[in-house]
Amino acid sequence: MNKLDASVTGVYVITVTPFTDSGALDLASTDRMVDFCLDLRVTGLTVLGIMGEATKLTAEESRVFVKQVLARVAGRVPVVVGASAPGFASIRELTESVMAMGAAGVMVAPPSTLRTDEQIAAYFALLDETLGNGVPWVLQDHPWSTGVQMATPVILRIIESSSTCVMLKHEDSPGLAKLSAIRVAIERGQVRRVSILTGNGGGLFLPEELSRGADGAMTGFAYPEMMVDVCAAHAAGRVDKAHDIFDAYLPLARYEQQAGIGLAVRKHILNQRGVIASAFVRKPGPTLSAADIADIARLTARQTRRLTEIA
Amino acid sequence: MNKLDASVTGVYVITVTPFTDSGALDLASTDRMVDFCLDLRVTGLTVLGIMGEATKLTAEESRVFVKQVLARVAGRVPVVVGASAPGFASIRELTESVMAMGAAGVMVAPPSTLRTDEQIAAYFALLDETLGNGVPWVLQDHPWSTGVQMATPVILRIIESSSTCVMLKHEDSPGLAKLSAIRVAIERGQVRRVSILTGNGGGLFLPEELSRGADGAMTGFAYPEMMVDVCAAHAAGRVDKAHDIFDAYLPLARYEQQAGIGLAVRKHILNQRGVIASAFVRKPGPTLSAADIADIARLTARQTRRLTEIA
Amino acid sequence: MNKLDASVTGVYVITVTPFTDSGALDLASTDRMVDFCLDLRVTGLTVLGIMGEATKLTAEESRVFVKQVLARVAGRVPVVVGASAPGFASIRELTESVMAMGAAGVMVAPPSTLRTDEQIAAYFALLDETLGNGVPWVLQDHPWSTGVQMATPVILRIIESSSTCVMLKHEDSPGLAKLSAIRVAIERGQVRRVSILTGNGGGLFLPEELSRGADGAMTGFAYPEMMVDVCAAHAAGRVDKAHDIFDAYLPLARYEQQAGIGLAVRKHILNQRGVIASAFVRKPGPTLSAADIADIARLTARQTRRLTEIA
Amino acid sequence: MNKLDASVTGVYVITVTPFTDSGALDLASTDRMVDFCLDLRVTGLTVLGIMGEATKLTAEESRVFVKQVLARVAGRVPVVVGASAPGFASIRELTESVMAMGAAGVMVAPPSTLRTDEQIAAYFALLDETLGNGVPWVLQDHPWSTGVQMATPVILRIIESSSTCVMLKHEDSPGLAKLSAIRVAIERGQVRRVSILTGNGGGLFLPEELSRGADGAMTGFAYPEMMVDVCAAHAAGRVDKAHDIFDAYLPLARYEQQAGIGLAVRKHILNQRGVIASAFVRKPGPTLSAADIADIARLTARQTRRLTEIA
Repeated sequence: MNKLDASVTGVYVITVTPFTDSGALDLASTDRMVDFCLDLRVTGLTVLGIMGEATKLTAEESRVFVKQVLARVAGRVPVVVGASAPGFASIRELTESVMAMGAAGVMVAPPSTLRTDEQIAAYFALLDETLGNGVPWVLQDHPWSTGVQMATPVILRIIESSSTCVMLKHEDSPGLAKLSAIRVAIERGQVRRVSILTGNGGGLFLPEELSRGADGAMTGFAYPEMMVDVCAAHAAGRVDKAHDIFDAYLPLARYEQQAGIGLAVRKHILNQRGVIASAFVRKPGPTLSAADIADIARLTARQTRRLTEIA
Repeated sequence: MNKLDASVTGVYVITVTPFTDSGALDLASTDRMVDFCLDLRVTGLTVLGIMGEATKLTAEESRVFVKQVLARVAGRVPVVVGASAPGFASIRELTESVMAMGAAGVMVAPPSTLRTDEQIAAYFALLDETLGNGVPWVLQDHPWSTGVQMATPVILRIIESSSTCVMLKHEDSPGLAKLSAIRVAIERGQVRRVSILTGNGGGLFLPEELSRGADGAMTGFAYPEMMVDVCAAHAAGRVDKAHDIFDAYLPLARYEQQAGIGLAVRKHILNQRGVIASAFVRKPGPTLSAADIADIARLTARQTRRLTEIA
Repeated sequence: MNKLDASVTGVYVITVTPFTDSGALDLASTDRMVDFCLDLRVTGLTVLGIMGEATKLTAEESRVFVKQVLARVAGRVPVVVGASAPGFASIRELTESVMAMGAAGVMVAPPSTLRTDEQIAAYFALLDETLGNGVPWVLQDHPWSTGVQMATPVILRIIESSSTCVMLKHEDSPGLAKLSAIRVAIERGQVRRVSILTGNGGGLFLPEELSRGADGAMTGFAYPEMMVDVCAAHAAGRVDKAHDIFDAYLPLARYEQQAGIGLAVRKHILNQRGVIASAFVRKPGPTLSAADIADIARLTARQTRRLTEIA
Repeated sequence: MNKLDASVTGVYVITVTPFTDSGALDLASTDRMVDFCLDLRVTGLTVLGIMGEATKLTAEESRVFVKQVLARVAGRVPVVVGASAPGFASIRELTESVMAMGAAGVMVAPPSTLRTDEQIAAYFALLDETLGNGVPWVLQDHPWSTGVQMATPVILRIIESSSTCVMLKHEDSPGLAKLSAIRVAIERGQVRRVSILTGNGGGLFLPEELSRGADGAMTGFAYPEMMVDVCAAHAAGRVDKAHDIFDAYLPLARYEQQAGIGLAVRKHILNQRGVIASAFVRKPGPTLSAADIADIARLTARQTRRLTEIA
């Protein structure tokens, strides 16, 4: 009943996976993190994404974590699970397991070995066959991390050939033109509607993406209220207000998007905000220097000040 | 007499190459662009960089353009010329030609085929040999476009083994830790001083980079006054003022840094500002949609307003 | 007692994973394949390598397959298990599982995201820590599939810092100079001895590699007797004989090394030879055309003829 | 009058660029090399390819070398010139220059930055526009060096949209299926005929490629007579004879195809054969060790012996 469908709008937060200081799964922090997101009125959650340290979990840990999240969410919002893996056997195993627990759908990015349009289309045709009829899935377009560039015609072809592909997580660069092209194709009836949530650089283009027809955001940021408030202002037709809010968060959002240390920045802030008990990142992973932490302190203080000014 | 040396601080603007609407070199706009930059009190210019469409010029056009820039600058500031090329023969040819005209030095990035530390060090040893003693050069570290990751030890090794390497154009990501490490190595005397100018994402981390010991910026942005003013505020010890200025420009700077269309955005704004007569970008190259142009109009209007607020 | 150590010489065959025509694990064929290899007097087996379709197996299937192989081998030769995975948690899980069953060691290749010498060394330091003291491991150097180039100094550094690294599976290109350099470093005592087995292009440089000091081969080929006989002739000082044998197999070995369809060629021949009941390759995977099959028929017939001539 | 057209069959040898021991262009050796190839009855020559060290020549040296080759050939066979460059301005410049001198056409490979079908098609549409009507060109498909995978539909699209594309230099891997698919498309009239010459790994699949409908070979090898004789035997319907000849050369051809040192091997042999006065390779480039040279001596001696046996 809580399955993902093509009508979704709003904000899906990509969550971190909380660990204790000794590196074990921290289920109490997991609960707190779920509460934190739901209190902010997000539309859904996405777990085990790139920023969820999915590859650093054992299969058993993945199941335990997803189960905990689903139990805490208790059906209040849909939960999408990242299921990208080197082979279809692992994708099928994880998918069956999390769908049985109550996940709303899975998200899959293309493996970095794909190059041509034919290879990409063939991969997702096989994914469709692997997932079967009952599993709604999200096509993750993230060339920056996968190295795979999926042109608009290929994305339309994938949507056309897999009726269970209900959402595009859009992150290409330059993404605005592509987003416009896909939205126009949907509006003209060239392809059926899918939900388009954007994640470009952790939401770094959110106001412009909403103007181009994005249905919302699916991304991670230590202040998910930014995405929620920007989307709300935009939905209310207050475009300049949406920009004001966005601009207040932008200096920190930009800092959190640094390749390599972004996850450590995010966990540090979530820890400072009292959401997770430890900022621990499993190896191999980044650690913050004193200078990094000072940067964050300055940026959050400035952000608080600016938010007050525009309130 | 105007040769680049390791003591440089300040802002080197990476210029565009102006064309007419029919795609020919526009030397009048070239003059105006030089004047525009010098009026903004930049410390130097860098031409024929990635954003200078260098690969789209014939060898003859490159020479004509550099000559025009040097004539207009007339020795008032140093001019660095991008000299990256697929082979050393071309690098030598262009270098000899532009140094004879009065360039201050050349800038070279590693070719995308390099992988190991040994290969990178060997490449720049050969470059040093190719350039010879009289040519100061800038090591361009730009993994995003070259795909080559140069770790700190390799950069130190290159500086150590080439006495004519006088500057690092720093653009790695995450760059702050690397910048700190190189600055510390210089301060401890592990390696001789080189100037470090940063370009990360078009200056998207400039305030933090200055705090880590960067000597300034070498990058392109349609509002070079941002770099000049941020550096000046920082040099005056007014760090929060530097952030205020930076934050006012950040929404547009972020927009201009979109992969793929950034150059078209920059030329469009420079054209709007009256600097260049045409926003023409040679093929293959991006064009802006009506929606892109509307985005830019909104962002520049908001920027003007915000700059007034903080003035 | 059957743990891998640094003194190994000879031929380790990289086996396929046999499936039935419907794609299920074929344990009877697995037994036959083990017998086939041991009858050919190979020194060891390597399972779940790139050509073992490891990523297409579920975790449970991997365990079942390894268990079957180990039971059939019954301690007669050491069995190495490929354990490369996107994260250390999975590597640890699989390793613990297969070592408990009686595997002789594991083989790990660097993930494709590594670039600099520092990153590579750090990765294998973490691997050493992950595997712990009791697990001998093979460093797999296969730039062609991983995209990671490990220069000789890095390989020596890894050997030096992990006492349980007992073998190098050497496959770089050009590999002969690198093989010579590592062998010389061992002979000069710059680094402790590790076994060096080569796999360059499915053994396509075996005679030359043996002359440079390789201890043998670790690779897959539908005619493992080629590697066994070439190594034997070489060990007996009959270098030209080694070349004669090698040359007889080379046209087919070359054909089997075609990127993309090599595994299908190998399984087809193993099926023709009566070793495995089906040539089935799991998706995504290559299939052979009638023209491919005709090519193989011609090449195997010519090979048989040539082997008779030189017998 | 000697322009390349779509009816070409036979062998185009990709030549080296001969240097003196001090690294200067060696025009006397250039003449000898031309004579050597023409005496072997090759159908055409290709100069300034990847193995022609094109990127290590100045623009002026390129012109001098091409002029010398054309003068010596004196219209007896067509000469194709490699014109791949980072930008269209350079491609146009070189093309105009060599066509004016009498070249038969140019060869262009896609730049390594291209990924999607759309990007590839757009690149070659722009190339077509750049070259103009009078310049026949060869589409070079060499994913191994360019990293660009051009699927069959894209190649057909390029042929369809550029009437001056008269030849495909086919080198993909696995190439046989692709070669068959393109040949079938031509036979069925889905696309107009282009000549297909193959170069897979320096001709390492030549007999099979001829069976699939290749029109001949365009590749480099220190024994061009291999390609000439294999093609002749095949054209005469003596397929097994073609394989016999091929197999005799295969051990050396394989050795010459080692990534990284292949060019040094080829120049060494051409020097030994008296064709070029020096085996000098410009930096950055490989050098041969004593062990490499001993390998080559053994392989050439064995090749001579085997050729006698099958004569």
